[in-house]
Amino acid sequence: MTNPERKAWSQDYSGWFHKVIAEVPIYDTRYPVKGTGIWMPFGYRLRKEVLRIIREELERTGHEEVLFPLLIPDYLLSKESEHIRDFEDEVYWVTHGGKTPLEVKLALRPTSETAMYPMFKLWINAYSDLPLRVFQIVNVFRYETKATRPMIRVREVSTFKEAHTAHATREEAEEQERIGVEVYSKIFERLKIPFLRTVRPDWDKFPGAERSIAFDTVMPDGKVLQIGTVHFLGQGFARAFDIRYMNSDGNYEHVWQTCYGISERAIAALISIHGDDHGLVLPSEVAPVQAVVIPIVYKGSEEEVLKRCKEVSEILKTSGVRVAIDDRRDMTPGNKYYSWEMKGTPVRIEIGPRDIDNNTVVLVRRDVLKKTPVNLDCLVEEVKRLFINIDEELTKRGREWMASKVREAETVDQAKSELDNNGGVVELNWCGRTNCGEELERTIDARILGVPFDKNGAENHITGAKCAGCNESAIKRIRVARSY
Amino acid sequence: MTNPERKAWSQDYSGWFHKVIAEVPIYDTRYPVKGTGIWMPFGYRLRKEVLRIIREELERTGHEEVLFPLLIPDYLLSKESEHIRDFEDEVYWVTHGGKTPLEVKLALRPTSETAMYPMFKLWINAYSDLPLRVFQIVNVFRYETKATRPMIRVREVSTFKEAHTAHATREEAEEQERIGVEVYSKIFERLKIPFLRTVRPDWDKFPGAERSIAFDTVMPDGKVLQIGTVHFLGQGFARAFDIRYMNSDGNYEHVWQTCYGISERAIAALISIHGDDHGLVLPSEVAPVQAVVIPIVYKGSEEEVLKRCKEVSEILKTSGVRVAIDDRRDMTPGNKYYSWEMKGTPVRIEIGPRDIDNNTVVLVRRDVLKKTPVNLDCLVEEVKRLFINIDEELTKRGREWMASKVREAETVDQAKSELDNNGGVVELNWCGRTNCGEELERTIDARILGVPFDKNGAENHITGAKCAGCNESAIKRIRVARSY
Repeated sequence: MTNPERKAWSQDYSGWFHKVIAEVPIYDTRYPVKGTGIWMPFGYRLRKEVLRIIREELERTGHEEVLFPLLIPDYLLSKESEHIRDFEDEVYWVTHGGKTPLEVKLALRPTSETAMYPMFKLWINAYSDLPLRVFQIVNVFRYETKATRPMIRVREVSTFKEAHTAHATREEAEEQERIGVEVYSKIFERLKIPFLRTVRPDWDKFPGAERSIAFDTVMPDGKVLQIGTVHFLGQGFARAFDIRYMNSDGNYEHVWQTCYGISERAIAALISIHGDDHGLVLPSEVAPVQAVVIPIVYKGSEEEVLKRCKEVSEILKTSGVRVAIDDRRDMTPGNKYYSWEMKGTPVRIEIGPRDIDNNTVVLVRRDVLKKTPVNLDCLVEEVKRLFINIDEELTKRGREWMASKVREAETVDQAKSELDNNGGVVELNWCGRTNCGEELERTIDARILGVPFDKNGAENHITGAKCAGCNESAIKRIRVARSY
Repeated sequence: MTNPERKAWSQDYSGWFHKVIAEVPIYDTRYPVKGTGIWMPFGYRLRKEVLRIIREELERTGHEEVLFPLLIPDYLLSKESEHIRDFEDEVYWVTHGGKTPLEVKLALRPTSETAMYPMFKLWINAYSDLPLRVFQIVNVFRYETKATRPMIRVREVSTFKEAHTAHATREEAEEQERIGVEVYSKIFERLKIPFLRTVRPDWDKFPGAERSIAFDTVMPDGKVLQIGTVHFLGQGFARAFDIRYMNSDGNYEHVWQTCYGISERAIAALISIHGDDHGLVLPSEVAPVQAVVIPIVYKGSEEEVLKRCKEVSEILKTSGVRVAIDDRRDMTPGNKYYSWEMKGTPVRIEIGPRDIDNNTVVLVRRDVLKKTPVNLDCLVEEVKRLFINIDEELTKRGREWMASKVREAETVDQAKSELDNNGGVVELNWCGRTNCGEELERTIDARILGVPFDKNGAENHITGAKCAGCNESAIKRIRVARSY
């Protein structure tokens, strides 16, 4: 396959990203509250298609959608002690209604465990109330003190999908954890976003969780972005919120819980990983416009060409393609190509007078920008074939990208030099001791992502190797990276 | 048509409403922040269908969906002086991020004019940037000091659809105001919710608007509920936020604006107006489950009956019906009927061993609870015919309900007695003077809704009649009601 042009993309990813989201436009960053932004019409439609995929995969696996209030009373937010310790510095507080000070301070949810679980206590009584599997898609808030970045590090996460489940036994909750990982894997596969699944080290778990499994991807600048997490909560929150069910012996037992989240970072990754110097390159399933028809008009042929464009558009629409005609009169075809390439539209269809004579159209696929004339009789078939080709190409590119960004290293120096030169993720042997891990992070100037996730839940213990940090016996293989 | 049982519904509407939303369940009011609630899975699906209709009608008329941040800096909220005067007592303020006091206080949006219009200033420059028509569906907040009521008077309005438009001329904005009224009329017609359209008196306009047109309906207790509003904003906000475009002479002019909103009150009205003592009665278009198949099993016939139920369900699903099978084993058919009637499911399909012998099923329509056996070969046709019949019946009932609740009166005494005995809306002649209006509201113990909206925008001036309040010359016909 022809390689796309990716000079701006690779040399100034941050500039590229800002330009693309502003020009499409996807997300306007000029709103005068730091760390927030506006989903513009095209961006909103892209977001909607991504959310459709997320909802489909969750509903298919028995999750029901709900919607909880935004505000959490302070006494609930602080019920689980680890949880509040991690969040207290970054919670926004509502303290006044009009000029009246509120009796109870209200937090803007940073995540919804402490909003949902008091209700779980009311909803769960009998064994037959379990399993409980709900999710919601909402905005959540973090008072970030670090530098913010559109869609990636924000103060209002505008698109937070959080799922929460409760189960009768540890085994059932662990099975749900595995299902959560599979659901997310499926979602990212449909988005053609390559990922690594990593069990986070204890010091980097979700506050209140027993275990956190993260989905990480590598962005164009080589930095790692966490794009999803699945948490096994054990019974900690169930105890804090007294969520119990009556077992077959008539005794009340605490439930076992999991929760998992995905945010608009998934959309930032979708935009970034597939893009090139012409702008977005979107997988067909999420492209708001999958095919755009562009009339190539000359004086005298306008009506005829436009009529054919409409026919072609109708045919595609009828067969389920999201199609648009760009019949703007004050714009050259070249400028139209530019604007639809920027939007990542998978297939462009050019129709001029000669195509009408020949009963053809010209298809241009976005990923490789290659033109193919096709007979009108094969239109739908050919367009759908191109969608498949594009999607396969994006999947392949994603895999190759990720493969090129995950390296092995023996020593701390190798790891550091690898990250300095190539970015991405480096795998190392490690002794498992926290203080050695901290030293390792400092020396490499990177973060320990954790241990590769194994489907069977094993932590991939190794023997016979030396820790890259302290040279003692290594017990784990860990991933190290510089991350957002 | 058989009249539905409506004893509980009419005698204790408030109790009926609370019972229905809890039992379906639609909306859980037990969340520990006053004036908020949780959309439960079935309620969420109902909400989704209603929002689908709202989106369809807005998109069909050229409105594009966007998503703005929740937080509005205090200096923006107070830019339009009338606007802030009306909202300042009921705005929630975020004052702290973690333990740090914020430099600029942030309001939870009570509505989004002051969030959107600074961006309109950036988006609008040339004539070709107009008209601008966007909408968003978000949560908004009001620190209500009155008693709250689920979905009707809340502190977190969880479902606020707000549309905002900008135009080059007064005429174009007035045309948009008319389109807004038509879009809303279409939405409520599709929901089978009867409505009156009324131009609010000056003292009851949206703060910052030149004119407000309201959609009101009458709830089962005879009280009026405002379920939608369309505002003609003139140039007030455009001036406050300096939103201008360059006209053909090269001069900058302020734009003309409109905005219009609908909230979950539309869903409260949908639930309330169609309901009966068995629970919800839903129009087919918004029913999350349009048809439910219930196996009537006897020992030995279980498998055969369940197999037939699945076949019937498949046939309906293929033809686009949202169908469910209730194959719960630990529940009698009678209890299943009860639960699906409570949910308002338009058509129930009962299938027992005898139906298999006869190649029939029994259809039961929810509005009149009438049973009809039909041949399996006509299944899809008959089910869809029932949907139409139910929808027509609900439209008819809605019209009759509204007709029975709008009365004429000559005098203040008549008006008061009418409202005391029948509730609803009373129409009166009025002189148009504010102080007479205030006196009239006090005497009747009711609210002046305003003047009937005329499609042509005229204010229906009358001559030759006397004001019911002061006996001077009347110039308007007004509507008076007790309202939520």
